[in-house]
Amino acid sequence: MGESIGLQSIKFTQAPYIYEGACAVGKKESEGPLGNLFDKCFEDEMMGLDSWEAAESFLQKTAVDILFEKSNLTPKDIKYFFAGDLLSQLIATSFGIMEYNIPLFGLYGACSTFGEAMSLGAMCVAGGYADKVISLASSHFASAEKQFRFPLAYGNQRPLAATFTVTGCGAVVVSRTKGNHNVRITGITTGKIVDYGVKDSMNMGACMAPAAADTIYQHFQDFSRTPDYYDKIITGDLGSVGHTILCDLLKEKGIDITDRHMDCGTEIFCSELQDTQSGGSGCGCSASTFCAYLLRQLDKGEWKRILFVPTGALLSTVSYNEGRSVPGIAHGLVIEAE
Amino acid sequence: MGESIGLQSIKFTQAPYIYEGACAVGKKESEGPLGNLFDKCFEDEMMGLDSWEAAESFLQKTAVDILFEKSNLTPKDIKYFFAGDLLSQLIATSFGIMEYNIPLFGLYGACSTFGEAMSLGAMCVAGGYADKVISLASSHFASAEKQFRFPLAYGNQRPLAATFTVTGCGAVVVSRTKGNHNVRITGITTGKIVDYGVKDSMNMGACMAPAAADTIYQHFQDFSRTPDYYDKIITGDLGSVGHTILCDLLKEKGIDITDRHMDCGTEIFCSELQDTQSGGSGCGCSASTFCAYLLRQLDKGEWKRILFVPTGALLSTVSYNEGRSVPGIAHGLVIEAE
Repeated sequence: MGESIGLQSIKFTQAPYIYEGACAVGKKESEGPLGNLFDKCFEDEMMGLDSWEAAESFLQKTAVDILFEKSNLTPKDIKYFFAGDLLSQLIATSFGIMEYNIPLFGLYGACSTFGEAMSLGAMCVAGGYADKVISLASSHFASAEKQFRFPLAYGNQRPLAATFTVTGCGAVVVSRTKGNHNVRITGITTGKIVDYGVKDSMNMGACMAPAAADTIYQHFQDFSRTPDYYDKIITGDLGSVGHTILCDLLKEKGIDITDRHMDCGTEIFCSELQDTQSGGSGCGCSASTFCAYLLRQLDKGEWKRILFVPTGALLSTVSYNEGRSVPGIAHGLVIEAE
Repeated sequence: MGESIGLQSIKFTQAPYIYEGACAVGKKESEGPLGNLFDKCFEDEMMGLDSWEAAESFLQKTAVDILFEKSNLTPKDIKYFFAGDLLSQLIATSFGIMEYNIPLFGLYGACSTFGEAMSLGAMCVAGGYADKVISLASSHFASAEKQFRFPLAYGNQRPLAATFTVTGCGAVVVSRTKGNHNVRITGITTGKIVDYGVKDSMNMGACMAPAAADTIYQHFQDFSRTPDYYDKIITGDLGSVGHTILCDLLKEKGIDITDRHMDCGTEIFCSELQDTQSGGSGCGCSASTFCAYLLRQLDKGEWKRILFVPTGALLSTVSYNEGRSVPGIAHGLVIEAE
């Protein structure tokens, strides 16, 4: 059960649990600051397969297999998948999770997809429609570069504002009953498309920050809360450039989150050592950071309440090459440890 | 409210209403058998704009504007959009409905997207999370051909099994309270990805029919019903080729729907006169046919109960060119006149 709160939010009266989470990532992610927290790290980013897309599908399959193992669940226990990725027509997802024979709601929210998947998963479970569902998102550096930018072999230079797409998949079981974590999704604030007219596909942080600011601002309005309600406010993949813009935009509206803002994109890599420019990005960034790190911090009691806001840049080569801007979107979730 | 039924279904105990529906289509659709039922027909398929993608966005905007007009609602009355299209990264949707400032759940289910959007919309409203939401899907013949097949100027020949992507957008307000129609969504059966290994991108009917058969079969299992419960069982865009395959596959499982099966793809065009081969397709096909024709038939009492099953082929040029098959998916909805 839940109730409509304010303009864009839902408060769950029977808040669903994060029953378990699992993630699988690539080599670069394993060498970053969170390296030893991921469930599985692949040395070979092709994973022995013959295309980047097949590798991304395998990443999804690996994360879901680990999720079943860690949670002692089987596909029969899961009613629906809420899942997506960055590739056109969601091919990483179609081919990644097909064999589980679980009904699928395919989602596209660019890099915010994990937030969208968890939001809809929580709505489904809290509504009494399912006992357990899986929310999942993935991205792969090489399949994303091929899709959105340049062939890897071209070896183009990257400006400092660019972010580095995370090779990773994160998946959680959202459940009516408690599992291995004392952590619940108690509310959501779903984002609008926000377009500040930014046309730089190498500066996704600037495209997404206005959307993150919009969702976070509206969240505080809808729930009548202030930033100090949360131990951390954690965006998906704004990177260092987007972080500054977000904090500035919110300050203009009288909200200061500087002391508690964190971004999965700046946590997952060490930019100086790993040459990842502004930070990590992609829906695998927030998804794998959530499963590896955020869930653990909530478990350990380091944080009691977080506002988790996966951010997405609605970039497409077609609209981009037609001279259109890159609008952003961001979906907020209130995650609380009991 | 609702309850989980069987493996893949939900039965709504407080079934949400289709408050109103609206659609906008192109010239070819206006010349078909349903021509005089559409709310708006465009003579110019570019709609005076400079790209096919912008035209598709305009189609969405037109349908939503008409929807607001017909329903006497404004964007303030709508809590969420559940929407999608066929284009990579859903650009028709991003640019089509941005200006309404309504939070968006972006969806991708190929041509089944309208079924996915209505399913999630119904779950949202029945769960008490919103009073009204809009579920929407669109496709455009020219943007789809550019995305998936050949440039129009190339003038390729089309085999008889090919379907013709509908230029159209359909949108409905799903509501807790009754509006202009005495029609409710009383249940859903969400589809799995089904892959029979078909690799012919010019025969989408064959790719989707196994998924439709799977969902329809499971629907009867989950709800303990037989085909005679429904006046019509209406798939999205199987076309004449897919229709035959679907009926055959279900017969193998002991279910005969031949006498009540209808397909939006064969309704929307007159293949002999319009040279549309196997029929219409695209998520705009089921969406606009639903709003123009199916809703009207339910209103008039011609049908009391239908099983509406938008069908999707998860085709992508990337996976297709890498030699992968085209899996299908289909989402079922029980729509009942009171």
